[in-house]
Amino acid sequence: MSVNTDLIYQVVDAIRSVVGAVPVALHEPRFAGREWEYVKLCLDSTFVSSVGKYVDRFEAELAAYTGVKHVVAVVNGTAALHIALRLAGVEPGDEVLVPAMTFIATANAISYCNAVPHFVDSEEDTFGIDPQALRAYLQLQTEQHGGLCVNKSTGRVVRAIVAMHTFGHPGQLDELLAIAIDFNLVMVEDAAESLGSYYHGRHTGTFGLLGTLSFNGNKTITTGGGGAIMTNNTDLALRARHITTTAKLPHAWQFVHDEVGYNHRLPNLNAALGCAQLEQLPQFIAAKRSLFQQYDAAFAGVQGIRVKKEPSNCLSNYWLQTVVLDTEKAFLQDGLLKALNEAGFMSRPVWSLMHQLTPYRGCPRMNLNVAENLAKRLINIPSSAALGTGVSV
Amino acid sequence: MSVNTDLIYQVVDAIRSVVGAVPVALHEPRFAGREWEYVKLCLDSTFVSSVGKYVDRFEAELAAYTGVKHVVAVVNGTAALHIALRLAGVEPGDEVLVPAMTFIATANAISYCNAVPHFVDSEEDTFGIDPQALRAYLQLQTEQHGGLCVNKSTGRVVRAIVAMHTFGHPGQLDELLAIAIDFNLVMVEDAAESLGSYYHGRHTGTFGLLGTLSFNGNKTITTGGGGAIMTNNTDLALRARHITTTAKLPHAWQFVHDEVGYNHRLPNLNAALGCAQLEQLPQFIAAKRSLFQQYDAAFAGVQGIRVKKEPSNCLSNYWLQTVVLDTEKAFLQDGLLKALNEAGFMSRPVWSLMHQLTPYRGCPRMNLNVAENLAKRLINIPSSAALGTGVSV
Repeated sequence: MSVNTDLIYQVVDAIRSVVGAVPVALHEPRFAGREWEYVKLCLDSTFVSSVGKYVDRFEAELAAYTGVKHVVAVVNGTAALHIALRLAGVEPGDEVLVPAMTFIATANAISYCNAVPHFVDSEEDTFGIDPQALRAYLQLQTEQHGGLCVNKSTGRVVRAIVAMHTFGHPGQLDELLAIAIDFNLVMVEDAAESLGSYYHGRHTGTFGLLGTLSFNGNKTITTGGGGAIMTNNTDLALRARHITTTAKLPHAWQFVHDEVGYNHRLPNLNAALGCAQLEQLPQFIAAKRSLFQQYDAAFAGVQGIRVKKEPSNCLSNYWLQTVVLDTEKAFLQDGLLKALNEAGFMSRPVWSLMHQLTPYRGCPRMNLNVAENLAKRLINIPSSAALGTGVSV
Repeated sequence: MSVNTDLIYQVVDAIRSVVGAVPVALHEPRFAGREWEYVKLCLDSTFVSSVGKYVDRFEAELAAYTGVKHVVAVVNGTAALHIALRLAGVEPGDEVLVPAMTFIATANAISYCNAVPHFVDSEEDTFGIDPQALRAYLQLQTEQHGGLCVNKSTGRVVRAIVAMHTFGHPGQLDELLAIAIDFNLVMVEDAAESLGSYYHGRHTGTFGLLGTLSFNGNKTITTGGGGAIMTNNTDLALRARHITTTAKLPHAWQFVHDEVGYNHRLPNLNAALGCAQLEQLPQFIAAKRSLFQQYDAAFAGVQGIRVKKEPSNCLSNYWLQTVVLDTEKAFLQDGLLKALNEAGFMSRPVWSLMHQLTPYRGCPRMNLNVAENLAKRLINIPSSAALGTGVSV
């Protein structure tokens, strides 16, 4: 048996030692709380649609949990990002800085604003945007014109930067905020993956002018489909609520809309599920953090690969557990993915990098060496909360 | 007591005689079937999100019910319209013919395509687009250039026409289809309000290249929030499914997306509710049709106002029951709305006409005399299915 085949076996064994019986999904929801009760009460009330007490409650409880002033619940994380970018002032023809290493929804939300994603590199330690490389790049690539950051090559305004907290690990928010200030950019946080993750003691998604969450079925908590916009700015929160509810002006019976709005509000039925899920979030996160410890211990003796640990001074929800191959073992990624999936441990590489996808191939970008290198070395492995508690789902 | 005050009292009394105890909502859902059973099974399966058997089943059963080949379930009717228009070939800068008398979502979906709504008039009999007036208008206003219909005033391509079946009453589909053929337009049907309504024996929404449905909480059946795209064109159905699921190419673990897609799929949780609702649709429609008969009888002796009846050769779901004031009684609309709502019978006028709303004031339009006249004379009155059965919700 070669050293390389040996590594693949060692990885499969390490994962088996933690998660046990197969098949194991990458990330499954867990309904061990009051899901039935709340959903039934919601049905009994007949208020299943865009108005209802569970929507209000879900928003209030998310605000309390994250420490943000305002939460506006919407149909999904993509819709949340779209509206957050609009409210951040992103206009047609603008550029928006965004990691190449992200789920396509982040870039798509920019496209929905008729703006152009401008891809930036990631860093090894946090999997987030590399602030040092970005600062150096912006110094060369942009110039300030009357308070606007302009891309010297394209002539377009660079309006905003989207920080994304990859797999739940907080990016370097202080440094990114400093860049936003220095270069006149608005910061929006895509915290779709990082509910329950904290940077220096403060919840991710609450640093930018606006932040967004996702409650898709594969997230730490789920509403079936759902998302939320977070902001400490009361005016923006009111605007978010207004344009996600067709921009209708309040009136007992008249239908007057004062702008082109969206039908993006989260149904009360989905919010009912969310309220029950949110009650279990602390347990889920404890279980997911325990799962990391178990993986970390299981991989202690395996050479050439490590389990991704939260950045220093951060608390990660460990949404998706990740193993990272050493650069010289990157060529094993495909073999490992095949072996893990065939063995019944659902695993996957990181998303295809945005600048390598047909719709975004022509977009402006900085040198993306680190993201390209990471993409060859990362594998997400089974991450459900239930795996961390030893409780079967 | 004046004749006019007398009319207001007569209307309030007629409605009271049908619906009984107050307060009465305009339209409430009714969960008298297997809603809880299916939703519970869905929760127990843990498949609450964008993949699951209830989504497949809901789509298949909607296809069987409406007689269309393909149904793609999405998050709401607005999303359905947006995607239908894109798939119909609507491009940025195009114009799309659409009634001024519609809910704003119809116009917004055109805006989301970066296209321009071009407002057309309605007719007294169907509340849908007036085909005769439209044909005469297009003959004057447009010319054909290489198979394209061009607006002579704006120079823009007029790409499509959206037929909308107001309050569930089918528009004149044969005549509108003939216009679409004669002027090289694609027809899309906004059947958000007309699930269960038939034009000459065939279900609305199945005549255009694509049609759309809505399952919002105020519709005949509800999924909390939800909608669907209908088409008999297999290629378009595949495209609809693809771009509503982030345009991801099938692969066991890779994330490759070949265009800018959307996160628009209906969650399985909402589809579970939809499956239970759909089983009751025939009863709901029978009840709503009975409610019309009861209103019609109650208004038989009231002069100056009539209850809206389905167009000839059509079967209407009577989604929203409507009373229509004679033109010389139009000035009573406000007083009637106040009296009805104060008496506890939730009532409302038709939507503000699109060309009178701030975001659409500058759009091209034909003479909208009939729509403007109707808007002063229509009042929607309580319409829930339960009112037609005498069963309290």
